[in-house]
Amino acid sequence: MYKIAFDVMGSDHGSKVAIQAASEFLKDKNDLVIIFVGDKAEIESAIKEFNISENKYEILATTETIDMNGSILDVRRKKDASMVKALELVKNKKVDGMLTAGSSAAFLGGSHFIIGEFDGVSRPAFMPTWPTIKNNTTLFLDAGANLENTSQDLHTYAQLATIYAKTILNIKKPKVGLLNVGIEESKGKDLQKETYKLLKEDKSINFFGNIESREMISGEVDIIVTDGFSGNIALKSMEGSLKNMMSVISKSMKKNLFRKLRAVLLLKAFKEVAETFDYKNHAGAILLGVDGIVFKSHGSSDVKSFRATLRMTYAAITGDVLTKMKKELTK
Amino acid sequence: MYKIAFDVMGSDHGSKVAIQAASEFLKDKNDLVIIFVGDKAEIESAIKEFNISENKYEILATTETIDMNGSILDVRRKKDASMVKALELVKNKKVDGMLTAGSSAAFLGGSHFIIGEFDGVSRPAFMPTWPTIKNNTTLFLDAGANLENTSQDLHTYAQLATIYAKTILNIKKPKVGLLNVGIEESKGKDLQKETYKLLKEDKSINFFGNIESREMISGEVDIIVTDGFSGNIALKSMEGSLKNMMSVISKSMKKNLFRKLRAVLLLKAFKEVAETFDYKNHAGAILLGVDGIVFKSHGSSDVKSFRATLRMTYAAITGDVLTKMKKELTK
Repeated sequence: MYKIAFDVMGSDHGSKVAIQAASEFLKDKNDLVIIFVGDKAEIESAIKEFNISENKYEILATTETIDMNGSILDVRRKKDASMVKALELVKNKKVDGMLTAGSSAAFLGGSHFIIGEFDGVSRPAFMPTWPTIKNNTTLFLDAGANLENTSQDLHTYAQLATIYAKTILNIKKPKVGLLNVGIEESKGKDLQKETYKLLKEDKSINFFGNIESREMISGEVDIIVTDGFSGNIALKSMEGSLKNMMSVISKSMKKNLFRKLRAVLLLKAFKEVAETFDYKNHAGAILLGVDGIVFKSHGSSDVKSFRATLRMTYAAITGDVLTKMKKELTK
Repeated sequence: MYKIAFDVMGSDHGSKVAIQAASEFLKDKNDLVIIFVGDKAEIESAIKEFNISENKYEILATTETIDMNGSILDVRRKKDASMVKALELVKNKKVDGMLTAGSSAAFLGGSHFIIGEFDGVSRPAFMPTWPTIKNNTTLFLDAGANLENTSQDLHTYAQLATIYAKTILNIKKPKVGLLNVGIEESKGKDLQKETYKLLKEDKSINFFGNIESREMISGEVDIIVTDGFSGNIALKSMEGSLKNMMSVISKSMKKNLFRKLRAVLLLKAFKEVAETFDYKNHAGAILLGVDGIVFKSHGSSDVKSFRATLRMTYAAITGDVLTKMKKELTK
C-alpha cells in the first residue's frame, strides 16, 4: 500500500478543493492511502461531502498553516504547520511522498532542513513539466529553486531528469538541451560553456546541445537544463505570453457581433488550447534532489491542478524514481 | 534633408524586399534621402521596379556582404562590405542613421569598432520594442548585445530608455521596471539588488520596481531593463511561445470540418493578433549607447519589418534622440 501525505492547507482556494481532487484521484486506486494533513474539522467535513472510503485515507490534524505568503522562517516558527508535518512524514518514512500548495520559499527551506538532499546533490531543483506542440512532454529544471548554479549542478540535473524521463515518461534516451542564448557550442557565459563540456562528455546523457528559449514548447528535446535564475525568467515569460495572448484572442473574437456569433462556437477549440498551455492546469513541480518525493502544486491550484500533481506524485512513487536517481549518482 | 544609410544586403529575403520597403516608406517623405548600400546592379534593378524618384535616393555600391552567418571578424576582413560602409557613413556624419539586417555579431562589433559608444556608456544594448495588451509600447533592454552587465550598465539603460520613451513615444514619465524573479526588493542576485538601489535613488527615473517576466506583454511598465543574457532568454521565450501557440490554434481550428467552416471566417481575427505579437513584424532593435543612430532589423525581415525599422530609424533621427541621450549622461 502506497501512502501520500497531502498538505491540504495554504492554497488560494482552500482545503475543500484539495480534498475533492484527492477523492477523484482515489476512485480507481486500490493501492493508495492519502494522509490529509491540516485542519481536522475542515478535512472531516470535506471527506464527508466527497464521500471518501474510510480505508483510503487518514487524517493528521495540525493547527498551523504556511500559506503563499509564508517565508522560510515559518518552517522553524510554525512547528505544527501542515507543510512541516507532511515533510516530517516523508523524512520519517511514514509516507512515500508528499505534496503541498503552500509557500514555495517555506517548501524549499523545509525540504532542505527537514529531509535534506541525497548524496551527489548540492542544490535541489524545481522541475515543472509541460506538453509541447509535438504532443510530447518537456521537463524543465531548475525553474527557480536557486538563484545561482554551478555547471556541476546542471550536470546533476541532466542526470536526474534523464532517469526521471526514462522512468516516468518511458523515453529510452531522453534528449537533453542546455538553455542558452544561441545554439553554437561557443555561446553563453562560463556556466553554459562549462556545462556544455560536462554534458557532451557524459555518455549516459543523450546531449542535444544548446537550445534557445524560443524552443521551450516546440518539443525539440525532452529535458531542458538551466540555472534557477534564467529558468525562472524563461518559464514566467512563457507563462505570461501564453496567458496574455489567450486573453487578447478572446477579446479580438468578441470584438463585434459578426465575429461574436461564430466565436461562441469556436470557444471550445480555444479552451482546449488554452488549457494545454496553461501551466497552472499542469502537475506541480517536483523538487528534484531531495531525499524523498516532494511536490509543489501552484498556490492557485484548482481541483484539476491538484489531481494532476497527485498523479505525478503517485507516478514518481510507483516508478521508484527516487531509488533510481540515487543509484545513478553513486554508480 | 535627413539621410539614412540602408544596408540592403545580407537579409534572408534579398535586397529587393528591402528596397520595396524603402520605396513605400519614402512615398510621403519629402525631407528624407535613403542611401542604398550594396550590390549596384541589384539596387538599380529594384529601384527601377519600384519606381523611386531620383531625388529620394543615392547608391553606395559595395562588393561584399556580411550575411546572417557573418562573424565579428568579418568587419575587419570585408572592408567593402555593405554593413561596414553603412556604419562608416554614420561615423563620418554623411548620414543621420543606418539600418541593416545582416549578422548581429558583426553589427555589434562593427558599431563598436567603427563608431564607438558615447561618453557614459560602457556597453551598448539592443532595445527591441513591442505592443502590449494595453495597447501601449514596451521598450526592452538589453535583449542580448551583452552576456554580462553591471548594475551601472542597467542604470544607464534606464536613463537612455527614459529619454527615448519621452522623445519617441511622448510619455511624460516613463515607468521603468527591473526584470527579476520576484517583485520584492530583496529578490534576485547581487546585480538585481544593486540595480534596484541605483534606480530607486535616481530621481530622474520613474522606477516602478521589480517586474516578473510574465508581465513582458502586459503593459505594466514602459521600459524593462535587464542584463543581456536574461533579456535574450526572456525575449526568445516570449517569441517562441507566441509563435508556437498561434500554430497550435490554427491547427486546432482546422481539426474538423465543422470547425473549419467557421475557422475561415475567424482567421482574420487571429491574423490580427498574431501580427500584433509577432516580433518579426515589428521594428528592429536600436543599438542604444552607440554614438550614432544604428538599427538592426531581423535577418528574416519582410517588406513590413523593413518598413517598420525604417520608421523607427526615421523617428529616432527626427526626434534627435541621440543628442538628448548624450546630454542626459553628461548633465
